[in-house]
Amino acid sequence: MTTRQQQSAVLALQWTGHSLRVLDQRQLPDTINYDEYTDAQGVAQAIASMRVRGAPAIGIAAAYGVVLSVNQHYSKSNSSWQQQVQTDITTLANSRPTAVNLFWALTQMKSVLDGQSDDPLPTILACAKKIHADDIAANYKMGELGADVLANATGILTHCNTGALATGGYGTALGVIRTVYARNPIKIYAGETRPWLQGQRLTVWELAQDEIPVTLIADSAAAWLMKSGAIDWVVVGADRIALNGDVANKIGTYSLAVLAKQHDVKVMVVAPTSTIDGAIENGDQIEIEQRQQSELLPDCYTDNTYVSAWNPVFDVTPAGLISAIVTERGVAFNPGVNGVVGLIEA
Amino acid sequence: MTTRQQQSAVLALQWTGHSLRVLDQRQLPDTINYDEYTDAQGVAQAIASMRVRGAPAIGIAAAYGVVLSVNQHYSKSNSSWQQQVQTDITTLANSRPTAVNLFWALTQMKSVLDGQSDDPLPTILACAKKIHADDIAANYKMGELGADVLANATGILTHCNTGALATGGYGTALGVIRTVYARNPIKIYAGETRPWLQGQRLTVWELAQDEIPVTLIADSAAAWLMKSGAIDWVVVGADRIALNGDVANKIGTYSLAVLAKQHDVKVMVVAPTSTIDGAIENGDQIEIEQRQQSELLPDCYTDNTYVSAWNPVFDVTPAGLISAIVTERGVAFNPGVNGVVGLIEA
Repeated sequence: MTTRQQQSAVLALQWTGHSLRVLDQRQLPDTINYDEYTDAQGVAQAIASMRVRGAPAIGIAAAYGVVLSVNQHYSKSNSSWQQQVQTDITTLANSRPTAVNLFWALTQMKSVLDGQSDDPLPTILACAKKIHADDIAANYKMGELGADVLANATGILTHCNTGALATGGYGTALGVIRTVYARNPIKIYAGETRPWLQGQRLTVWELAQDEIPVTLIADSAAAWLMKSGAIDWVVVGADRIALNGDVANKIGTYSLAVLAKQHDVKVMVVAPTSTIDGAIENGDQIEIEQRQQSELLPDCYTDNTYVSAWNPVFDVTPAGLISAIVTERGVAFNPGVNGVVGLIEA
Repeated sequence: MTTRQQQSAVLALQWTGHSLRVLDQRQLPDTINYDEYTDAQGVAQAIASMRVRGAPAIGIAAAYGVVLSVNQHYSKSNSSWQQQVQTDITTLANSRPTAVNLFWALTQMKSVLDGQSDDPLPTILACAKKIHADDIAANYKMGELGADVLANATGILTHCNTGALATGGYGTALGVIRTVYARNPIKIYAGETRPWLQGQRLTVWELAQDEIPVTLIADSAAAWLMKSGAIDWVVVGADRIALNGDVANKIGTYSLAVLAKQHDVKVMVVAPTSTIDGAIENGDQIEIEQRQQSELLPDCYTDNTYVSAWNPVFDVTPAGLISAIVTERGVAFNPGVNGVVGLIEA
């Protein structure tokens, strides 16, 4: 089945020809403000500060960051430009630790760069644009594949933001949800997603922009929602997928997967194959980012004498709790049995 | 084993002799501000607006509300004072629907009131003060009983606020945690408890006042915390307990109980017997309060065209997921087997 997939009204990243404009997602939904970056250091800062977030969007932003670095440092008379670009690539790679798309995109860019002898800018720009365009195309493809699997769904809960804001456009899990909704207007729920409230601030806003109704819940209400029978699928994105199908994603995903299992609700993970880390066998090997305690604590706690916070921003869901992993190359059903190797070897 | 139980530094309710001072918990931890009420309507408003919250504290506040009503309406020459007090009692009863302690306290007050022919004020005030004092005494008793059960615990997660702020003083679940900590300084975790953040704003603050270290987590991080092996007990309060041992408590409690079961973590519920509703057999009969969507939604959504919120503020945990219900009259182990009837018949 093919669906008329409507383009999302939202753009997280805009390449201007000489700079990268980044929508500051920290200010949504109150303020729509783009920051403009002309060097890689700025782009790395935009990623680290979470102006841009979402695994695929981080990868695309980093690719444009390399373009800006080449633009800044390359000249025929400067023999050390490649070293300066490499320094920028390292800075970009250090901006966030968990999403593998970042490293994947930088590896792609590096590989193209290494083959250049003449002015590398046109080729390197073409590579970044291709990463961006391929991501959008992958989203549309995953939308179709995922929606086919969800043909009989009546209610879906999603977590975090995996839409146009988190990708090149359209979205991974939210792209599937858009496509499902275009075929059949079912009920959609979004979890708030503490501590950054990506669900409350971003997912709900994005869906409203596209006139898709959505009901927000507190993260801790998900089990009670499942018990009510309102949903039959949890549909989420991924920041990194191990070869055995274990999935690192926003903190709370593992919780939803365990709860889903107990309520006969199924779990779908939607992510491009660039999210699969071919170098790791299972989720135990994924580095989980710990962010500042201040994201959770009230301002009045200036030291940790009595009050501290534990703030892992991702968790790992074992493959055995997942019913389907949807990529642009196909769907891995029951990844707990077969993993996802077949998707990247195909 | 008896512990030196240190009084909490925090007071949610203060009877002045002619008025009730209520700590406005909505402003904590930033501002410590007491509002003073001299009539029952004001107290009902303080409960409905959540200046005071927590099942036992709501019951105590309502009892003092009846005292204020009698003080306002009784005079020898006013033959309709009892009717006016009854109107106030109805207003107080309608202030929140789920916590049964509210109705229990009002029934106690009504019963004393009905037996009065002369000036009822001294007797009715004595009754309110006894409800208050009995609650504190029950908390200390539960602290001991619960701590005995938790003798071998190494890490505890609690949810919402069940401390001095939620009770007459000391606390139910947090009273047990205080007592456990006084015996053996183990690791204590508190969930934020969206949407009102009672954990982040109140529990953490209360423990810090008493110099007890605590680590805050996002509600959705509880499963990942359990998986890490950091806790062996979830200890929570209750807003209403059915005869079969089903427990209504803050939204997210059911989620924690399901997750605990999957991680070999045990669940303890701590509540005075006034929380047991002798009129209901099981949790299906408990009315679950739905609060305003605005507690979850960003301010910019002024209508519900596309964006709405589902905001149940309690859920029901089946008795089968609970290892122990601790009351001032004793502990019901495995309430899924025997319920809690034995505790109120004793």
